[in-house]
Amino acid sequence: MPNPTAAMLVIGDEILSGRTRDSNAHALARALTLHGMDLRQIRVVGDVADTITTAARALSETHDHLFTSGGIGPTHDDITADCIAAVTGAPIGVRDDAREILARHYAERGTELNDSRLRMARIPDGATLIANPVSAAPGFSLGNIHVLAGVPQIFDAMLAGLLPRLAGGTPVASRTLTLDRGEGDIAQTLSRVAQEHPALSLGSYPSWTGDGYRVAVVVRGADDDEIGAAIGKLRAAFPEARE
Amino acid sequence: MPNPTAAMLVIGDEILSGRTRDSNAHALARALTLHGMDLRQIRVVGDVADTITTAARALSETHDHLFTSGGIGPTHDDITADCIAAVTGAPIGVRDDAREILARHYAERGTELNDSRLRMARIPDGATLIANPVSAAPGFSLGNIHVLAGVPQIFDAMLAGLLPRLAGGTPVASRTLTLDRGEGDIAQTLSRVAQEHPALSLGSYPSWTGDGYRVAVVVRGADDDEIGAAIGKLRAAFPEARE
Repeated sequence: MPNPTAAMLVIGDEILSGRTRDSNAHALARALTLHGMDLRQIRVVGDVADTITTAARALSETHDHLFTSGGIGPTHDDITADCIAAVTGAPIGVRDDAREILARHYAERGTELNDSRLRMARIPDGATLIANPVSAAPGFSLGNIHVLAGVPQIFDAMLAGLLPRLAGGTPVASRTLTLDRGEGDIAQTLSRVAQEHPALSLGSYPSWTGDGYRVAVVVRGADDDEIGAAIGKLRAAFPEARE
Repeated sequence: MPNPTAAMLVIGDEILSGRTRDSNAHALARALTLHGMDLRQIRVVGDVADTITTAARALSETHDHLFTSGGIGPTHDDITADCIAAVTGAPIGVRDDAREILARHYAERGTELNDSRLRMARIPDGATLIANPVSAAPGFSLGNIHVLAGVPQIFDAMLAGLLPRLAGGTPVASRTLTLDRGEGDIAQTLSRVAQEHPALSLGSYPSWTGDGYRVAVVVRGADDDEIGAAIGKLRAAFPEARE
Protein backbone atom coordinates (compact mmCIF):
# COMPACT_ATOMS: atom_id res chain seq x y z
CA MET A 1 0.00 0.00 0.00
CA PRO A 2 1.42 3.40 -0.88
CA ASN A 3 2.25 5.77 1.97
CA PRO A 4 -0.36 8.39 2.92
CA THR A 5 0.13 11.71 1.13
CA ALA A 6 0.44 15.08 2.79
CA ALA A 7 0.59 18.78 1.98
CA MET A 8 1.58 21.78 4.05
CA LEU A 9 0.20 25.31 4.14
CA VAL A 10 2.44 27.92 5.77
CA ILE A 11 0.46 31.04 6.65
CA GLY A 12 2.08 34.42 7.26
CA ASP A 13 2.95 37.72 5.57
CA GLU A 14 6.30 37.70 7.38
CA ILE A 15 7.56 34.78 5.28
CA LEU A 16 6.54 36.39 1.99
CA SER A 17 8.10 39.75 2.88
CA GLY A 18 11.39 38.04 3.70
CA ARG A 19 11.33 39.23 7.31
CA THR A 20 11.26 35.65 8.62
CA ARG A 21 12.74 32.53 7.12
CA ASP A 22 10.30 29.66 7.58
CA SER A 23 11.69 26.59 9.30
CA ASN A 24 8.48 24.65 9.94
CA ALA A 25 8.23 23.24 6.40
CA HIS A 26 11.67 21.68 6.70
CA ALA A 27 10.87 20.30 10.18
CA LEU A 28 7.64 18.78 8.87
CA ALA A 29 9.36 17.32 5.80
CA ARG A 30 11.89 15.50 7.96
CA ALA A 31 9.29 14.27 10.44
CA LEU A 32 6.93 12.97 7.73
CA THR A 33 9.72 11.09 5.95
CA LEU A 34 10.45 9.24 9.21
CA HIS A 35 6.73 8.67 9.82
CA GLY A 36 6.19 7.18 6.35
CA MET A 37 4.09 10.00 4.91
CA ASP A 38 4.74 11.38 1.46
CA LEU A 39 4.89 15.20 1.53
CA ARG A 40 3.82 16.25 -1.96
CA GLN A 41 3.45 20.02 -1.81
CA ILE A 42 4.18 23.05 0.37
CA ARG A 43 2.43 26.39 -0.10
CA VAL A 44 3.18 29.67 1.61
CA VAL A 45 0.42 32.31 1.57
CA GLY A 46 -0.20 35.61 3.35
CA ASP A 47 -2.72 36.54 6.04
CA VAL A 48 -5.60 36.87 3.56
CA ALA A 49 -8.79 34.92 4.28
CA ASP A 50 -9.75 34.09 0.66
CA THR A 51 -6.26 32.91 -0.19
CA ILE A 52 -5.98 30.74 2.91
CA THR A 53 -9.40 29.20 2.39
CA THR A 54 -8.84 28.48 -1.31
CA ALA A 55 -5.45 26.90 -0.70
CA ALA A 56 -6.64 24.85 2.30
CA ARG A 57 -9.61 23.51 0.36
CA ALA A 58 -7.52 22.57 -2.69
CA LEU A 59 -4.75 20.91 -0.67
CA SER A 60 -7.02 19.03 1.77
CA GLU A 61 -9.12 17.64 -1.10
CA THR A 62 -6.11 16.28 -2.98
CA HIS A 63 -4.00 14.87 -0.12
CA ASP A 64 -4.65 12.47 2.76
CA HIS A 65 -3.49 15.09 5.27
CA LEU A 66 -2.99 18.85 5.31
CA PHE A 67 -0.79 20.45 7.98
CA THR A 68 -0.96 24.22 8.51
CA SER A 69 1.37 26.47 10.47
CA GLY A 70 0.79 30.02 11.67
CA GLY A 71 -2.10 32.40 12.24
CA ILE A 72 -3.54 30.99 15.46
CA GLY A 73 -2.39 33.70 17.91
CA PRO A 74 -4.44 36.46 19.61
CA THR A 75 -4.03 39.33 17.12
CA HIS A 76 -6.25 40.76 14.37
CA ASP A 77 -4.34 38.98 11.60
CA ASP A 78 -4.65 35.52 13.21
CA ILE A 79 -7.47 34.10 11.10
CA THR A 80 -6.46 30.50 10.40
CA ALA A 81 -9.04 28.83 12.69
CA ASP A 82 -11.91 30.75 11.12
CA CYS A 83 -10.63 29.99 7.59
CA ILE A 84 -10.37 26.25 8.28
CA ALA A 85 -13.85 26.26 9.79
CA ALA A 86 -15.09 27.95 6.61
CA VAL A 87 -13.42 25.26 4.43
CA THR A 88 -15.29 22.48 6.22
CA GLY A 89 -18.49 24.37 7.00
CA ALA A 90 -18.08 23.69 10.73
CA PRO A 91 -19.47 26.32 13.15
CA ILE A 92 -16.77 28.04 15.22
CA GLY A 93 -16.76 29.88 18.53
CA VAL A 94 -14.97 29.96 21.88
CA ARG A 95 -15.06 26.36 23.04
CA ASP A 96 -15.27 25.44 26.73
CA ASP A 97 -12.44 22.88 26.70
CA ALA A 98 -10.03 25.32 25.05
CA ARG A 99 -11.16 28.20 27.29
CA GLU A 100 -10.48 26.05 30.34
CA ILE A 101 -6.94 25.27 29.18
CA LEU A 102 -6.22 28.97 28.69
CA ALA A 103 -7.92 30.03 31.95
CA ARG A 104 -5.81 27.59 33.97
CA HIS A 105 -2.59 28.59 32.18
CA TYR A 106 -3.06 32.34 32.65
CA ALA A 107 -4.40 32.01 36.23
CA GLU A 108 -1.20 30.19 37.21
CA ARG A 109 0.79 33.12 35.87
CA GLY A 110 -1.42 35.91 37.21
CA THR A 111 -2.09 37.06 33.66
CA GLU A 112 -5.50 38.31 32.54
CA LEU A 113 -7.41 36.13 30.06
CA ASN A 114 -8.53 39.15 28.02
CA ASP A 115 -10.64 39.18 24.84
CA SER A 116 -7.57 38.98 22.61
CA ARG A 117 -6.26 35.88 24.37
CA LEU A 118 -9.72 34.36 24.36
CA ARG A 119 -9.60 34.40 20.55
CA MET A 120 -7.16 31.50 20.89
CA ALA A 121 -10.02 29.39 22.30
CA ARG A 122 -11.97 29.75 19.04
CA ILE A 123 -12.07 26.12 17.86
CA PRO A 124 -14.42 24.65 15.23
CA ASP A 125 -17.13 22.24 16.39
CA GLY A 126 -16.02 18.64 15.98
CA ALA A 127 -12.31 19.43 16.02
CA THR A 128 -9.89 17.47 18.23
CA LEU A 129 -7.49 19.67 20.21
CA ILE A 130 -3.73 19.38 19.72
CA ALA A 131 -1.84 20.00 22.96
CA ASN A 132 0.59 22.91 23.24
CA PRO A 133 3.02 22.02 26.05
CA VAL A 134 4.92 25.30 25.57
CA SER A 135 2.33 28.06 25.93
CA ALA A 136 -1.03 26.26 26.35
CA ALA A 137 -3.08 27.70 23.44
CA PRO A 138 -4.02 24.54 21.51
CA GLY A 139 -4.00 23.63 17.85
CA PHE A 140 -6.64 21.30 16.42
CA SER A 141 -7.38 18.59 13.87
CA LEU A 142 -10.58 18.95 11.87
CA GLY A 143 -11.12 16.10 9.42
CA ASN A 144 -7.81 15.72 7.61
CA ILE A 145 -6.62 19.26 8.37
CA HIS A 146 -4.18 19.74 11.26
CA VAL A 147 -3.77 23.32 12.47
CA LEU A 148 -0.46 24.04 14.26
CA ALA A 149 1.24 27.16 15.61
CA GLY A 150 3.80 29.15 13.63
CA VAL A 151 6.40 29.67 16.39
CA PRO A 152 8.91 26.89 15.63
CA GLN A 153 9.30 25.50 19.16
CA ILE A 154 5.51 25.26 19.49
CA PHE A 155 5.07 23.82 15.99
CA ASP A 156 7.60 21.09 16.81
CA ALA A 157 6.00 20.28 20.16
CA MET A 158 2.49 20.10 18.66
CA LEU A 159 3.72 17.91 15.82
CA ALA A 160 5.43 15.52 18.24
CA GLY A 161 2.10 15.05 20.00
CA LEU A 162 0.03 14.81 16.84
CA LEU A 163 1.99 12.41 14.60
CA PRO A 164 1.60 9.28 16.75
CA ARG A 165 -2.20 9.69 16.32
CA LEU A 166 -1.91 9.55 12.52
CA ALA A 167 -1.35 6.26 10.70
CA GLY A 168 1.97 6.36 8.88
CA GLY A 169 3.38 4.10 6.22
CA THR A 170 6.80 2.72 5.43
CA PRO A 171 9.61 5.03 6.54
CA VAL A 172 11.77 5.90 3.55
CA ALA A 173 15.41 4.87 3.95
CA SER A 174 18.22 6.56 2.06
CA ARG A 175 21.96 6.35 1.45
CA THR A 176 24.10 9.11 0.00
CA LEU A 177 27.31 9.10 -2.06
CA THR A 178 29.31 12.31 -2.45
CA LEU A 179 31.53 13.10 -5.44
CA ASP A 180 33.65 16.13 -6.34
CA ARG A 181 32.26 16.30 -9.87
CA GLY A 182 29.57 18.02 -11.86
CA GLU A 183 26.28 16.26 -12.52
CA GLY A 184 27.11 16.15 -16.23
CA ASP A 185 29.80 13.52 -15.50
CA ILE A 186 27.43 11.14 -13.78
CA ALA A 187 24.05 11.78 -15.42
CA GLN A 188 24.17 8.83 -17.83
CA THR A 189 25.16 6.29 -15.18
CA LEU A 190 22.56 7.69 -12.81
CA SER A 191 19.86 7.41 -15.42
CA ARG A 192 20.81 3.76 -16.18
CA VAL A 193 20.77 2.73 -12.50
CA ALA A 194 17.46 4.57 -12.00
CA GLN A 195 15.94 2.60 -14.88
CA GLU A 196 17.24 -0.68 -13.45
CA HIS A 197 15.62 0.07 -10.06
CA PRO A 198 12.21 1.63 -10.71
CA ALA A 199 11.19 1.04 -7.07
CA LEU A 200 13.95 3.39 -5.89
CA SER A 201 14.22 7.14 -6.22
CA LEU A 202 17.64 8.38 -7.34
CA GLY A 203 18.40 12.06 -7.03
CA SER A 204 21.53 14.11 -7.53
CA TYR A 205 21.98 17.36 -5.65
CA PRO A 206 24.76 19.65 -6.78
CA SER A 207 26.38 22.29 -4.65
CA TRP A 208 29.00 24.86 -5.53
CA THR A 209 32.19 24.75 -3.49
CA GLY A 210 33.61 28.03 -4.75
CA ASP A 211 35.80 26.56 -7.48
CA GLY A 212 33.78 23.61 -8.72
CA TYR A 213 30.80 21.38 -8.25
CA ARG A 214 30.22 18.74 -5.65
CA VAL A 215 27.29 16.39 -6.04
CA ALA A 216 25.42 14.25 -3.54
CA VAL A 217 23.74 11.21 -5.07
CA VAL A 218 20.86 10.07 -2.89
CA VAL A 219 19.23 6.66 -3.26
CA ARG A 220 15.87 6.41 -1.48
CA GLY A 221 13.43 3.56 -1.07
CA ALA A 222 11.68 1.16 1.28
CA ASP A 223 13.99 -1.86 0.74
CA ASP A 224 17.47 -1.66 2.28
CA ASP A 225 18.82 -4.53 0.12
CA GLU A 226 17.75 -2.90 -3.11
CA ILE A 227 19.22 0.44 -1.98
CA GLY A 228 22.47 -1.44 -1.27
CA ALA A 229 22.46 -2.98 -4.76
CA ALA A 230 22.07 0.42 -6.43
CA ILE A 231 24.78 1.95 -4.21
CA GLY A 232 27.07 -0.93 -5.27
CA LYS A 233 26.57 -0.14 -8.96
CA LEU A 234 27.25 3.55 -8.40
CA ARG A 235 30.42 2.77 -6.42
CA ALA A 236 31.63 0.52 -9.22
CA ALA A 237 31.19 3.37 -11.72
CA PHE A 238 32.63 6.04 -9.40
CA PRO A 239 35.27 4.38 -7.18
CA GLU A 240 36.22 7.73 -5.59
CA ALA A 241 32.72 8.28 -4.18
CA ARG A 242 32.51 8.87 -0.42
CA GLU A 243 29.57 7.62 1.64
CA MET B 1 -0.25 52.18 -8.85
CA PRO B 2 0.06 48.99 -6.82
CA ASN B 3 3.34 47.11 -6.98
CA PRO B 4 3.65 44.22 -9.45
CA THR B 5 2.74 40.85 -7.94
CA ALA B 6 4.93 37.75 -7.96
CA ALA B 7 4.83 34.08 -7.11
CA MET B 8 7.58 31.51 -6.69
CA LEU B 9 7.70 27.83 -7.62
CA VAL B 10 10.46 25.80 -5.94
CA ILE B 11 11.02 22.51 -7.77
CA GLY B 12 12.73 19.52 -6.19
CA ASP B 13 12.03 16.26 -4.38
CA GLU B 14 14.94 16.99 -2.03
CA ILE B 15 13.04 19.84 -0.36
CA LEU B 16 9.90 17.74 0.18
CA SER B 17 11.85 14.78 1.60
CA GLY B 18 13.56 17.08 4.10
CA ARG B 19 17.02 16.29 2.75
CA THR B 20 17.63 19.92 1.78
CA ARG B 21 16.31 23.06 3.39
CA ASP B 22 15.35 25.53 0.69
CA SER B 23 16.96 28.96 0.95
CA ASN B 24 16.01 30.42 -2.43
CA ALA B 25 12.47 31.39 -1.42
CA HIS B 26 13.79 33.50 1.44
CA ALA B 27 16.44 35.09 -0.81
CA LEU B 28 13.78 35.93 -3.41
CA ALA B 29 11.39 37.32 -0.77
CA ARG B 30 14.04 39.74 0.49
CA ALA B 31 15.12 40.80 -3.00
CA LEU B 32 11.55 41.41 -4.21
CA THR B 33 10.67 43.51 -1.16
CA LEU B 34 13.63 45.78 -1.98
CA HIS B 35 12.68 45.82 -5.68
CA GLY B 36 9.07 46.82 -4.96
CA MET B 37 7.43 43.56 -6.00
CA ASP B 38 4.75 41.95 -3.91
CA LEU B 39 5.46 38.23 -3.39
CA ARG B 40 2.04 36.65 -2.88
CA GLN B 41 2.66 32.91 -2.86
CA ILE B 42 5.41 30.28 -2.74
CA ARG B 43 4.85 26.68 -3.78
CA VAL B 44 7.21 23.76 -3.44
CA VAL B 45 6.58 20.73 -5.66
CA GLY B 46 8.49 17.57 -6.57
CA ASP B 47 10.14 16.54 -9.84
CA VAL B 48 6.85 15.49 -11.46
CA ALA B 49 5.98 16.97 -14.86
CA ASP B 50 2.20 17.24 -14.39
CA THR B 51 2.55 18.87 -10.99
CA ILE B 52 5.13 21.38 -12.20
CA THR B 53 3.11 22.28 -15.28
CA THR B 54 -0.16 22.69 -13.38
CA ALA B 55 1.42 24.86 -10.69
CA ALA B 56 3.37 26.99 -13.17
CA ARG B 57 0.27 27.62 -15.25
CA ALA B 58 -1.88 28.56 -12.24
CA LEU B 59 0.74 30.85 -10.71
CA SER B 60 1.80 32.59 -13.93
CA GLU B 61 -1.82 33.31 -14.87
CA THR B 62 -2.63 34.93 -11.53
CA HIS B 63 0.55 36.96 -10.88
CA ASP B 64 2.56 39.52 -12.86
CA HIS B 65 5.70 37.39 -12.52
CA LEU B 66 6.54 33.79 -11.68
CA PHE B 67 10.05 32.85 -10.56
CA THR B 68 11.07 29.18 -10.52
CA SER B 69 14.11 27.55 -8.93
CA GLY B 70 15.53 24.10 -9.56
CA GLY B 71 15.36 21.37 -12.16
CA ILE B 72 17.54 22.86 -14.92
CA GLY B 73 20.63 20.67 -14.54
CA PRO B 74 21.84 17.80 -16.79
CA THR B 75 20.20 14.78 -15.13
CA HIS B 76 17.10 12.74 -15.91
CA ASP B 77 15.00 14.49 -13.27
CA ASP B 78 15.79 18.00 -14.56
CA ILE B 79 12.57 18.73 -16.43
CA THR B 80 11.74 22.34 -15.62
CA ALA B 81 12.59 23.81 -19.05
CA ASP B 82 10.36 21.29 -20.84
CA CYS B 83 7.53 21.86 -18.36
CA ILE B 84 7.63 25.65 -18.79
CA ALA B 85 7.71 25.24 -22.58
CA ALA B 86 4.60 23.05 -22.25
CA VAL B 87 2.83 25.73 -20.16
CA THR B 88 3.29 28.34 -22.87
CA GLY B 89 3.11 26.04 -25.90
CA ALA B 90 6.56 27.18 -27.07
CA PRO B 91 8.66 24.62 -29.01
CA ILE B 92 11.85 23.59 -27.19
CA GLY B 93 15.18 22.14 -28.29
CA VAL B 94 18.91 22.71 -27.97
CA ARG B 95 19.35 26.34 -28.90
CA ASP B 96 22.49 27.60 -30.65
CA ASP B 97 23.12 30.56 -28.34
CA ALA B 98 22.92 28.40 -25.22
CA ARG B 99 25.00 25.62 -26.81
CA GLU B 100 27.70 28.16 -27.65
CA ILE B 101 27.84 29.38 -24.04
CA LEU B 102 28.25 25.80 -22.79
CA ALA B 103 30.76 24.85 -25.52
CA ARG B 104 33.00 27.80 -24.65
CA HIS B 105 32.76 27.12 -20.91
CA TYR B 106 33.61 23.42 -21.13
CA ALA B 107 36.30 23.92 -23.81
CA GLU B 108 38.12 26.33 -21.48
CA ARG B 109 38.12 23.61 -18.80
CA GLY B 110 38.96 20.68 -21.05
CA THR B 111 35.64 19.05 -20.14
CA GLU B 112 33.53 17.16 -22.65
CA LEU B 113 30.20 18.74 -23.66
CA ASN B 114 28.42 15.39 -23.56
CA ASP B 115 24.73 14.67 -24.22
CA SER B 116 23.82 15.12 -20.56
CA ARG B 117 25.42 18.57 -20.38
CA LEU B 118 23.86 19.50 -23.70
CA ARG B 119 20.44 19.07 -22.07
CA MET B 120 21.20 22.36 -20.30
CA ALA B 121 21.06 24.12 -23.70
CA ARG B 122 17.40 23.11 -24.14
CA ILE B 123 15.71 26.52 -24.14
CA PRO B 124 12.19 27.30 -25.40
CA ASP B 125 11.85 29.34 -28.58
CA GLY B 126 11.33 33.02 -27.83
CA ALA B 127 12.88 32.86 -24.35
CA THR B 128 15.49 35.40 -23.23
CA LEU B 129 18.56 33.84 -21.60
CA ILE B 130 19.48 34.68 -18.00
CA ALA B 131 23.24 34.71 -17.49
CA ASN B 132 24.89 32.27 -15.08
CA PRO B 133 28.22 33.82 -14.06
CA VAL B 134 29.03 30.88 -11.79
CA SER B 135 28.83 27.80 -13.99
CA ALA B 136 27.65 29.05 -17.43
CA ALA B 137 24.46 27.01 -17.99
CA PRO B 138 21.83 29.75 -18.42
CA GLY B 139 18.36 30.27 -17.06
CA PHE B 140 15.67 31.95 -19.12
CA SER B 141 12.64 34.24 -19.09
CA LEU B 142 9.66 33.16 -21.19
CA GLY B 143 6.77 35.61 -21.01
CA ASN B 144 6.31 36.34 -17.32
CA ILE B 145 8.03 33.12 -16.16
CA HIS B 146 11.64 33.34 -15.01
CA VAL B 147 13.49 30.03 -14.74
CA LEU B 148 16.47 30.04 -12.36
CA ALA B 149 18.86 27.40 -11.01
CA GLY B 150 18.34 25.65 -7.69
CA VAL B 151 21.91 25.85 -6.36
CA PRO B 152 21.73 28.90 -4.06
CA GLN B 153 24.88 30.70 -5.24
CA ILE B 154 23.71 30.37 -8.86
CA PHE B 155 20.12 31.33 -8.02
CA ASP B 156 21.37 34.50 -6.32
CA ALA B 157 23.70 35.40 -9.20
CA MET B 158 20.97 34.86 -11.83
CA LEU B 159 18.50 36.90 -9.82
CA ALA B 160 20.97 39.77 -9.47
CA GLY B 161 21.25 39.89 -13.27
CA LEU B 162 17.54 39.46 -13.90
CA LEU B 163 15.85 41.88 -11.50
CA PRO B 164 17.17 45.13 -13.03
CA ARG B 165 15.42 44.07 -16.28
CA LEU B 166 12.03 43.85 -14.54
CA ALA B 167 10.05 46.97 -13.65
CA GLY B 168 9.67 47.21 -9.89
CA GLY B 169 7.40 49.40 -7.79
CA THR B 170 7.75 51.18 -4.50
CA PRO B 171 10.18 49.49 -2.13
CA VAL B 172 8.43 48.67 1.11
CA ALA B 173 9.99 50.31 4.17
CA SER B 174 9.60 48.88 7.65
CA ARG B 175 10.40 49.62 11.29
CA THR B 176 10.35 47.11 14.10
CA LEU B 177 9.68 47.41 17.84
CA THR B 178 10.59 44.53 20.14
CA LEU B 179 8.84 43.80 23.45
CA ASP B 180 9.29 41.07 26.05
CA ARG B 181 5.58 40.30 26.20
CA GLY B 182 3.03 37.98 24.71
CA GLU B 183 0.89 39.11 21.80
CA GLY B 184 -2.17 38.95 24.02
CA ASP B 185 -0.94 42.06 25.90
CA ILE B 186 -0.65 44.19 22.80
CA ALA B 187 -3.31 42.86 20.45
CA GLN B 188 -5.93 45.51 21.20
CA THR B 189 -3.55 48.45 20.78
CA LEU B 190 -2.15 46.91 17.62
CA SER B 191 -5.60 46.48 16.17
CA ARG B 192 -6.51 50.12 16.96
CA VAL B 193 -3.33 51.54 15.35
CA ALA B 194 -3.83 49.25 12.32
CA GLN B 195 -7.36 50.64 11.88
CA GLU B 196 -6.10 54.22 12.13
CA HIS B 197 -3.49 53.58 9.40
CA PRO B 198 -5.11 51.43 6.71
CA ALA B 199 -2.27 52.22 4.26
CA LEU B 200 0.22 50.48 6.57
CA SER B 201 0.62 46.80 7.35
CA LEU B 202 1.10 46.01 11.05
CA GLY B 203 2.26 42.55 11.98
CA SER B 204 3.32 41.00 15.28
CA TYR B 205 5.73 38.09 15.27
CA PRO B 206 6.11 36.16 18.49
CA SER B 207 9.08 34.04 19.40
CA TRP B 208 9.66 31.85 22.42
CA THR B 209 12.72 32.67 24.51
CA GLY B 210 12.60 29.53 26.65
CA ASP B 211 10.71 31.04 29.59
CA GLY B 212 8.37 33.50 27.93
CA TYR B 213 7.30 35.28 24.79
CA ARG B 214 9.04 38.04 22.93
CA VAL B 215 7.20 39.83 20.16
CA ALA B 216 8.43 41.91 17.24
CA VAL B 217 5.92 44.45 16.00
CA VAL B 218 6.65 45.34 12.38
CA VAL B 219 5.13 48.39 10.69
CA ARG B 220 5.45 48.30 6.90
CA GLY B 221 4.46 50.74 4.20
CA ALA B 222 5.57 53.07 1.42
CA ASP B 223 5.46 56.34 3.42
CA ASP B 224 8.21 56.87 6.02
CA ASP B 225 6.29 59.66 7.80
CA GLU B 226 3.19 57.55 8.26
CA ILE B 227 5.31 54.64 9.52
CA GLY B 228 6.86 57.07 12.00
CA ALA B 229 3.44 58.22 13.21
CA ALA B 230 2.32 54.64 13.86
CA ILE B 231 5.60 53.81 15.63
CA GLY B 232 5.05 56.89 17.83
CA LYS B 233 1.62 55.64 18.92
CA LEU B 234 2.99 52.19 19.72
CA ARG B 235 5.86 53.66 21.72
CA ALA B 236 3.39 55.77 23.71
CA ALA B 237 1.41 52.63 24.58
CA PHE B 238 4.50 50.48 25.27
CA PRO B 239 7.26 52.77 26.61
CA GLU B 240 9.61 49.84 27.22
CA ALA B 241 9.67 48.86 23.51
CA ARG B 242 13.11 48.65 21.89
CA GLU B 243 13.69 49.62 18.27
